[in-house]
Amino acid sequence: MDSSGVNPLLAAIADTGRDRRRGGYSRPVFSTAELDLRSWFTAEAQRRGLDTETDRNGILWAWWGPPQAGALVTGSHLDSVPGGGAFDGPLGIASALAAVDLMRSRGVQPRRSLAVAVFPEEEGSRFGVACLGSRLLTGAIDPDTARNLRDADGTTFAEAVRAHGLDPDRLGRDEQALARIGDFVELHVEQGRGLGDGGPAVAVGGSVLGHGRWRLSIRGEGNHAGTTAMADRADPMVAAAHIIVAVQQAAAAVDGARATVGRISPVPGGTNVIASRVDLWLDARHPRDTVTLELVDTIHGKAQKIAAFEGCTVTLSRESWTGTTEFEPMLRRSLEFFLPGAPVLATGAGHDAGILAGHVPAGMLFVRNPTGISHSPEEHVEPADAEAGTAALADVLADLL
Amino acid sequence: MDSSGVNPLLAAIADTGRDRRRGGYSRPVFSTAELDLRSWFTAEAQRRGLDTETDRNGILWAWWGPPQAGALVTGSHLDSVPGGGAFDGPLGIASALAAVDLMRSRGVQPRRSLAVAVFPEEEGSRFGVACLGSRLLTGAIDPDTARNLRDADGTTFAEAVRAHGLDPDRLGRDEQALARIGDFVELHVEQGRGLGDGGPAVAVGGSVLGHGRWRLSIRGEGNHAGTTAMADRADPMVAAAHIIVAVQQAAAAVDGARATVGRISPVPGGTNVIASRVDLWLDARHPRDTVTLELVDTIHGKAQKIAAFEGCTVTLSRESWTGTTEFEPMLRRSLEFFLPGAPVLATGAGHDAGILAGHVPAGMLFVRNPTGISHSPEEHVEPADAEAGTAALADVLADLL
Repeated sequence: MDSSGVNPLLAAIADTGRDRRRGGYSRPVFSTAELDLRSWFTAEAQRRGLDTETDRNGILWAWWGPPQAGALVTGSHLDSVPGGGAFDGPLGIASALAAVDLMRSRGVQPRRSLAVAVFPEEEGSRFGVACLGSRLLTGAIDPDTARNLRDADGTTFAEAVRAHGLDPDRLGRDEQALARIGDFVELHVEQGRGLGDGGPAVAVGGSVLGHGRWRLSIRGEGNHAGTTAMADRADPMVAAAHIIVAVQQAAAAVDGARATVGRISPVPGGTNVIASRVDLWLDARHPRDTVTLELVDTIHGKAQKIAAFEGCTVTLSRESWTGTTEFEPMLRRSLEFFLPGAPVLATGAGHDAGILAGHVPAGMLFVRNPTGISHSPEEHVEPADAEAGTAALADVLADLL
Repeated sequence: MDSSGVNPLLAAIADTGRDRRRGGYSRPVFSTAELDLRSWFTAEAQRRGLDTETDRNGILWAWWGPPQAGALVTGSHLDSVPGGGAFDGPLGIASALAAVDLMRSRGVQPRRSLAVAVFPEEEGSRFGVACLGSRLLTGAIDPDTARNLRDADGTTFAEAVRAHGLDPDRLGRDEQALARIGDFVELHVEQGRGLGDGGPAVAVGGSVLGHGRWRLSIRGEGNHAGTTAMADRADPMVAAAHIIVAVQQAAAAVDGARATVGRISPVPGGTNVIASRVDLWLDARHPRDTVTLELVDTIHGKAQKIAAFEGCTVTLSRESWTGTTEFEPMLRRSLEFFLPGAPVLATGAGHDAGILAGHVPAGMLFVRNPTGISHSPEEHVEPADAEAGTAALADVLADLL
């Protein structure tokens, strides 16, 4: 069975969206790379006799059986962070296709329809809001807010979906599509070191940690780097540096908290120019939502003191927020029953399954990542573990189907 | 004389290269905006009967009289920093054209040819090396190094000059062009507060402070912002933040020193990604070269300690360096003679005149900037001061011609 299973499917897309500069893959939503992956998925679905459709929020569905309310749905995403790994997203999509093959080869007779769903902009790496597709589907984001999100080139999400052939006026909560999801199971590469060497290769998701994104805009006085004495400056880059240090110290002081500045953008950004403004983005998470929000408050207070000391001002705006989500206990027990010995992991990463969990029974499977590193070219899944993940997905889907 | 003088010339290019996002102007070398300005300059020169030519380093010349060795040359640049002001560069070019008009209207009879020169990439805002055109002309940069400089999109300088119709193999020291510069005078907007309100509107340049650019690359471990505990991180952004603070503190501790980080670039640069690498650029200046270089050494030492503490590594590489340059005393005395009462200013900014000063007699005139702010939309010159600058330039050129 050399040509079957999840690994040949992943091999077919191993050259799509490679990022020569950063390493790994850059597959932002609606980029050439992500659209190529959607075409690949559509062709693979049609080869299996699955009907495909793109709904009004840009979610791509492939149906085994007629589209119907209460169907069993599995899926993940094809977009990536800049310079991301090969598995975050595509592993869940490829495993879903391979699990359909495996169930059919075992003669599974579905009692209800099954759909494989591809969610757009899960990473939020282009428009800044993670899980944008599932947030639109469930109404967790206001469609007007979504339409006005802009990428780094100034393109709005409305313009991007229109270029993809969708009507931006029809973005938003989709009752019909939501009613079709009877249960949702997402398989995903593990993004920490929760599955050690030698033990089980697959874990069951227990909860998704609350997480959010905030933007801090620090304004100072732009000027010439050579002609402005140090004492005459109101340099927002110096304020930003003190704030980044404060973020790290504030998070380290709270057990279980994680806070990160991974993106920073000085304006105008010239080497011989004191910046007039610096924007930086804060990612903050903790198992307890009140702790996350208190941490952000603490950081905001420190940032205001720092900015004032440097003669600058700072504003903080929330770009997204999702509270800690426990997966549905009944579905989780089904997954545990079919995967005896599989550990139950809380995940610090956000997932579409976490957004859907507030609306429909949702669960997750995680496949071992021996490096524990994710959102990086170092992310890895051994081929045997990928097949074990597919087998586990096929087992739980066959039971639920 | 509504239609003559320097102000109508500046008004004609007031809409070219405006930067709606940053404010001010973004006119990087060989961009559409800078090429439009070159076309404008060529048309204005030809309207005055000046012959134009572009030499093999991309310097654009307009000749009053035949090209000849030992000519009098004035000029500046048309490129800008990102979001720069309207005057830094174009004021010198427009004033040169207006000064030719003024000398002709006064019946000045030249004893030698005069050229107006437009130097490319004075700001270094696209390829990272300031005064690149004059450095190539004088041999201050190795042509191979110049050819391999890359802009933010990965385009090499060789590719950029080829697209502009030049042969990259012919870049480099140009004996013939250099021999044509008998004396060089550059008029430039003042970039500090050296010319107060009410006093003279024009100053004479005394020296150009030594200055250089260095890049610090900090490498850590890229990972997922949600799944990686604070204690398990080697986050190069945190190290970069401590280094920016150290740069500010080190420079503030040295009288007359200026050190700036105005540009920073995390890789991959995603909100939910711990960066694997952060590049930042250091601009450092001091009237005494040994002090500048000691300051950079101090910063390098601190950066290494900071990086090691954060589990990261750092490398420092010099991108450009020019020692403090005194302008030629004879030429400077001529300028002072024709501008009695004009203050003599040392400038913290680099200029093509500073590069040329090592090879030919060179001098500078500075025109009042009431904000004292430069490399920013706040940069300003009052129309009356611009005309005073043109008149002063015409006076000194007529004397030297």
